[in-house]
Amino acid sequence: MIIVMATNATEKEADNVRDEIRQRGLTAHDNYGTQRVVIAVLGDVAPVRDVLMGKLSVMPGVESVTPISRPYKLTSRESHPEDTVIEVLGTKVGNGNLTIMAGPCSIEGRDMMLETAQAVAASGATILRGGAFKPRTSPYAFQGLGIEGLKYLAEASKLTGLPTITEVMEPSQVDVVAEHSDILQVGTRNMQNYSLLTAVGKAGKPVMLKRGYGATIEEWLMAAEYIVSSGNPHVILCERGIRTFETYTRNTLDLTAVPLLHHLTHLPVIVDPSHATGKRWLVKPMALAAVAAGADGIMVEVHPNPDQARSDGEQSLTFDQFADMASALNQIHEMVKTLNKDPFTMPGQVKVGGTSKH
Amino acid sequence: MIIVMATNATEKEADNVRDEIRQRGLTAHDNYGTQRVVIAVLGDVAPVRDVLMGKLSVMPGVESVTPISRPYKLTSRESHPEDTVIEVLGTKVGNGNLTIMAGPCSIEGRDMMLETAQAVAASGATILRGGAFKPRTSPYAFQGLGIEGLKYLAEASKLTGLPTITEVMEPSQVDVVAEHSDILQVGTRNMQNYSLLTAVGKAGKPVMLKRGYGATIEEWLMAAEYIVSSGNPHVILCERGIRTFETYTRNTLDLTAVPLLHHLTHLPVIVDPSHATGKRWLVKPMALAAVAAGADGIMVEVHPNPDQARSDGEQSLTFDQFADMASALNQIHEMVKTLNKDPFTMPGQVKVGGTSKH
Amino acid sequence: MIIVMATNATEKEADNVRDEIRQRGLTAHDNYGTQRVVIAVLGDVAPVRDVLMGKLSVMPGVESVTPISRPYKLTSRESHPEDTVIEVLGTKVGNGNLTIMAGPCSIEGRDMMLETAQAVAASGATILRGGAFKPRTSPYAFQGLGIEGLKYLAEASKLTGLPTITEVMEPSQVDVVAEHSDILQVGTRNMQNYSLLTAVGKAGKPVMLKRGYGATIEEWLMAAEYIVSSGNPHVILCERGIRTFETYTRNTLDLTAVPLLHHLTHLPVIVDPSHATGKRWLVKPMALAAVAAGADGIMVEVHPNPDQARSDGEQSLTFDQFADMASALNQIHEMVKTLNKDPFTMPGQVKVGGTSKH
Amino acid sequence: MIIVMATNATEKEADNVRDEIRQRGLTAHDNYGTQRVVIAVLGDVAPVRDVLMGKLSVMPGVESVTPISRPYKLTSRESHPEDTVIEVLGTKVGNGNLTIMAGPCSIEGRDMMLETAQAVAASGATILRGGAFKPRTSPYAFQGLGIEGLKYLAEASKLTGLPTITEVMEPSQVDVVAEHSDILQVGTRNMQNYSLLTAVGKAGKPVMLKRGYGATIEEWLMAAEYIVSSGNPHVILCERGIRTFETYTRNTLDLTAVPLLHHLTHLPVIVDPSHATGKRWLVKPMALAAVAAGADGIMVEVHPNPDQARSDGEQSLTFDQFADMASALNQIHEMVKTLNKDPFTMPGQVKVGGTSKH
Repeated sequence: MIIVMATNATEKEADNVRDEIRQRGLTAHDNYGTQRVVIAVLGDVAPVRDVLMGKLSVMPGVESVTPISRPYKLTSRESHPEDTVIEVLGTKVGNGNLTIMAGPCSIEGRDMMLETAQAVAASGATILRGGAFKPRTSPYAFQGLGIEGLKYLAEASKLTGLPTITEVMEPSQVDVVAEHSDILQVGTRNMQNYSLLTAVGKAGKPVMLKRGYGATIEEWLMAAEYIVSSGNPHVILCERGIRTFETYTRNTLDLTAVPLLHHLTHLPVIVDPSHATGKRWLVKPMALAAVAAGADGIMVEVHPNPDQARSDGEQSLTFDQFADMASALNQIHEMVKTLNKDPFTMPGQVKVGGTSKH
Repeated sequence: MIIVMATNATEKEADNVRDEIRQRGLTAHDNYGTQRVVIAVLGDVAPVRDVLMGKLSVMPGVESVTPISRPYKLTSRESHPEDTVIEVLGTKVGNGNLTIMAGPCSIEGRDMMLETAQAVAASGATILRGGAFKPRTSPYAFQGLGIEGLKYLAEASKLTGLPTITEVMEPSQVDVVAEHSDILQVGTRNMQNYSLLTAVGKAGKPVMLKRGYGATIEEWLMAAEYIVSSGNPHVILCERGIRTFETYTRNTLDLTAVPLLHHLTHLPVIVDPSHATGKRWLVKPMALAAVAAGADGIMVEVHPNPDQARSDGEQSLTFDQFADMASALNQIHEMVKTLNKDPFTMPGQVKVGGTSKH
Repeated sequence: MIIVMATNATEKEADNVRDEIRQRGLTAHDNYGTQRVVIAVLGDVAPVRDVLMGKLSVMPGVESVTPISRPYKLTSRESHPEDTVIEVLGTKVGNGNLTIMAGPCSIEGRDMMLETAQAVAASGATILRGGAFKPRTSPYAFQGLGIEGLKYLAEASKLTGLPTITEVMEPSQVDVVAEHSDILQVGTRNMQNYSLLTAVGKAGKPVMLKRGYGATIEEWLMAAEYIVSSGNPHVILCERGIRTFETYTRNTLDLTAVPLLHHLTHLPVIVDPSHATGKRWLVKPMALAAVAAGADGIMVEVHPNPDQARSDGEQSLTFDQFADMASALNQIHEMVKTLNKDPFTMPGQVKVGGTSKH
Repeated sequence: MIIVMATNATEKEADNVRDEIRQRGLTAHDNYGTQRVVIAVLGDVAPVRDVLMGKLSVMPGVESVTPISRPYKLTSRESHPEDTVIEVLGTKVGNGNLTIMAGPCSIEGRDMMLETAQAVAASGATILRGGAFKPRTSPYAFQGLGIEGLKYLAEASKLTGLPTITEVMEPSQVDVVAEHSDILQVGTRNMQNYSLLTAVGKAGKPVMLKRGYGATIEEWLMAAEYIVSSGNPHVILCERGIRTFETYTRNTLDLTAVPLLHHLTHLPVIVDPSHATGKRWLVKPMALAAVAAGADGIMVEVHPNPDQARSDGEQSLTFDQFADMASALNQIHEMVKTLNKDPFTMPGQVKVGGTSKH
């Protein structure tokens, strides 16, 4: 932590800052510049980080306080240089594998779930998705089939041999969702629902954490830290678009987050181009772009008849569109793997892709 | 709902759109322009609004689809022209009363809670606040005293005669929080936690719904609609800053939301300048501005010794600062009430302050 | 234009709206719904669009006014279905060609410009870039070599046979820049400098218009409309990141803008991953992603010795890094061309890539 | 400047950083923490600030680089503790005076300009505004009367005795605008038009610099620094709303910028509620809020008949509305002046309102 004193701060004010630091068992180290003094805090700052920053930032004579360590630890690449690879029913997420999660937005019935599952399994999906508990902006919209939907999803998994993922919306649903599904999804609106994060952290199943549409990458990693620190190291991150001033698309897909996250964290990164764009015809180009940027996979919505879908039909692919896209993604992925053996290294000498070097 | 066809759309494509509308029992009404046809959907669109919009928006020949009715109903001023006034323990929120909610960010112990309650009660607070369950960005930060904290809050209420407000973070906490507190607060990170919204909608106590830091005003009103449609009409809205590109302040306080909400909804509007600005010395000017803009009240954090606070100390006021500010707010409020008997009317002829006229 | 009346609007208020429309020589067409009347404006709205919208939006009884035609015309795909292809010194931008613009951020001297030009020409660049007039956030930073720099750029063009692009910052510079360079660049901070847009619109050379970092896609196309309506149809659009709340990257690269622009406009679209990310090691993955998303090319900064660059060194590539990236881009581009012969069509039946069909 | 090394950085990498610092004639001062080394740069960093930051940030082993001094100097409160007061024709802007700038968006003719000037002068305006050169998003919209408009504005000044302000859009217009008007306005779209900033910096007349709608406060102050460093210390800042994801209002008025700017800079701060909100009925409450937040004044649009205005009619006030608002603003201002003699002090011990103390 670095405390920058104002140019007109008195020596007494600087002393008060030093005292405050020492009272926490830490060391205050001075850096005298030409115009002001800058005080570094040395020692194990982590346990008192936020409180100390808050306190120092309003002390007389203090111009600014800047943390130097990142607030997330277990999820950081620094603490864990090797890529995390998550294995579910023989399918691996991360480490050079291309993950394709596909299925309907909402599970609308047994037939449509099984039909969709077979179609996407036949054309390249590696994980089945389907919504049973649906978070909807309007209280008057279709809220999903609930447990009945979970059963159809589990049946689809048996039929195809593919693992499944579905959303859980509150702590009390965690057990039943974990019973029927292989991966638990935490949605964008619940990214900072800490009760839920703690609950899925204890569920014993991998968790996919979608980025909050208003959340920074740092907050996203802090939310992942909640899950990992609750005992569950198997977290997948999913970029799905952030909120900006642009209104032609529903959200702005932040693809730069993909290589950035590979630098900051060891967790695998999936991209959801369906929700970010909100338009069927934008899904394929953005999925290709995501894989070209180094994503470990993508998640898309597929429906037997998108025009009749009970939710998100406008962004769902038909079976044919999905098959065409999945084939294209695999080709791009194969090429990108060879193209990214490259001379580009990152600060701190961690390479994209994850192996540390010196 | 208005469907704008592309200039090069065929008559067959327009027919398909009309058929889709009629199949839902609605009427398609043509408006032929010089360059294109525009189709209006007439009838009771509400029950199929989202699905129909989704479907039409991706049909061949369709350029755009625009809804014309707002998706929230119970919370809208159109459906309920009179201001909602919420009465708790004899204190009224809304309808020209100035509400001042004050107390510590976190309840850190019995003594500090009671001391703070007495101080703020003596200098102008009308409602006591205090956090028992704390949503924290970091899993390693102080998470609140829980039920023990709730008991101190209830004791403070008895001591001062003031009603209380405290945050509830998950459905399973609703009962115990409702038992000890007069108003339930839903925090910014849970604004779209629909399980929680439904639960507080059934709790039988007024609810204060903070705006999600990434949420539009429309989404905020839709979240309020969840609560009201669950049976609870006593909802207070609280603006607390939104996320923007500006980094000098923690969030950007959206004060224009205040007069805008008075136009769109009948619910009272409170402003929280502490969280929006994140700095103690910005709290007073922004609280004054909020009341000048027509807010029904403000919520601030007060601490006996802000420098020793376990959370948010940098934005908490001392007792003296609070007393000074509360006095100023009351003076501004008295003046603004007389200044706002004015010639400014809004579209649809609903006046600021809320009584409809013609 | 669609006028939605309030549910409590009187018939007199609706009449006033109709009168206002008719006074402009337009037709008011009623659509009576169950709750309100919606009035469509028919006729040639364009000449009075903004004024009429403004006036109607504040008339008593009016709930909202929505335009149905887009405000840009000459730049729209509707008005000009075929892709615009821009040819400079035998190099084509658009229409399936991959454009790679490369060179130093600032031209720092003759030797470095010529050396860089030869290096990038040898490894895949199709257009040379180099800054002579530099817009700098700080008045104390290096502002470029000016006309001297332009001469080195022109010399580099002769040496390599490649066309050149450089930024012009004010109307009075247009002539001299046009004399020495093949393409004029308008920078992100000048996207709505209308005097400059009009001046480059009359310069007789192609223009590359960078997106304003705070500008919507619609405003960007309106800025292009200024250039085209001044007589210059040869406009290239360049996405370079927009400003959002995320601070880990300098800006958020909006790659979804690429396929979206191919739908909305016939102009070619280039992506600048250097300025958007601000980090050298993020340039290659985002350039690959841009091409995978369908971009017509990319623009990057290359420097003989980035660590000694006088501006933007942290985002400049070395010669080796550029060569590696250019090779990768060409491979991805070849693959994407074949992968995008696909079943994804867009609303209004305009295909990605641009040929209209029915 | 603070360089944080990665936890796995080698001693050799840290040495390279120290060498780089020393080569610039600066001192590298180590702070050894438990996990990493943090290097402070001591000495006169300013002249090499940006280049050094860029270079260090991509050196191997470097985790992050943070500047500690602000990039603006002449505009900072630190360098100039006393409030700047700008006097034009006997009217003072800043230092406790309430400035009310009023007049038409566009000067549409002689009569309307003179009529409006007399009306606003009679009811409280202290400075006349009127647009002669209009920046318009659409090339097809009314662009202003140009020099003819300037003459009407000058005539209005003589008639009323009030000083005037009008926008200048390009360097070549500066002379003629300065000849006819007392204050030069730089619009939001030109905030980083550096050629224009330099030109108005040499014009010898006060300048009002509107905030770019996508610009941070720091960039805004850097733009002001361009003007001041060109020799013109008489700069007024004008907050007019920033671009956010909220779409119910045209922009989001950032009123917290007002007290924040009083802390960061000595320049006076004006608020424009007309452009931020885009709606006539939101102007008064936001003007009151601006003054309550401590603004030195406001700028609003007034028109004899807003419904017939050629631009921005929907946000223009009638004469009666302006008179009502101006009276209210003066009352609030008188009250706020007494209420702000308060115990709230800011970091670095600079009080709101501006006198430094110890």
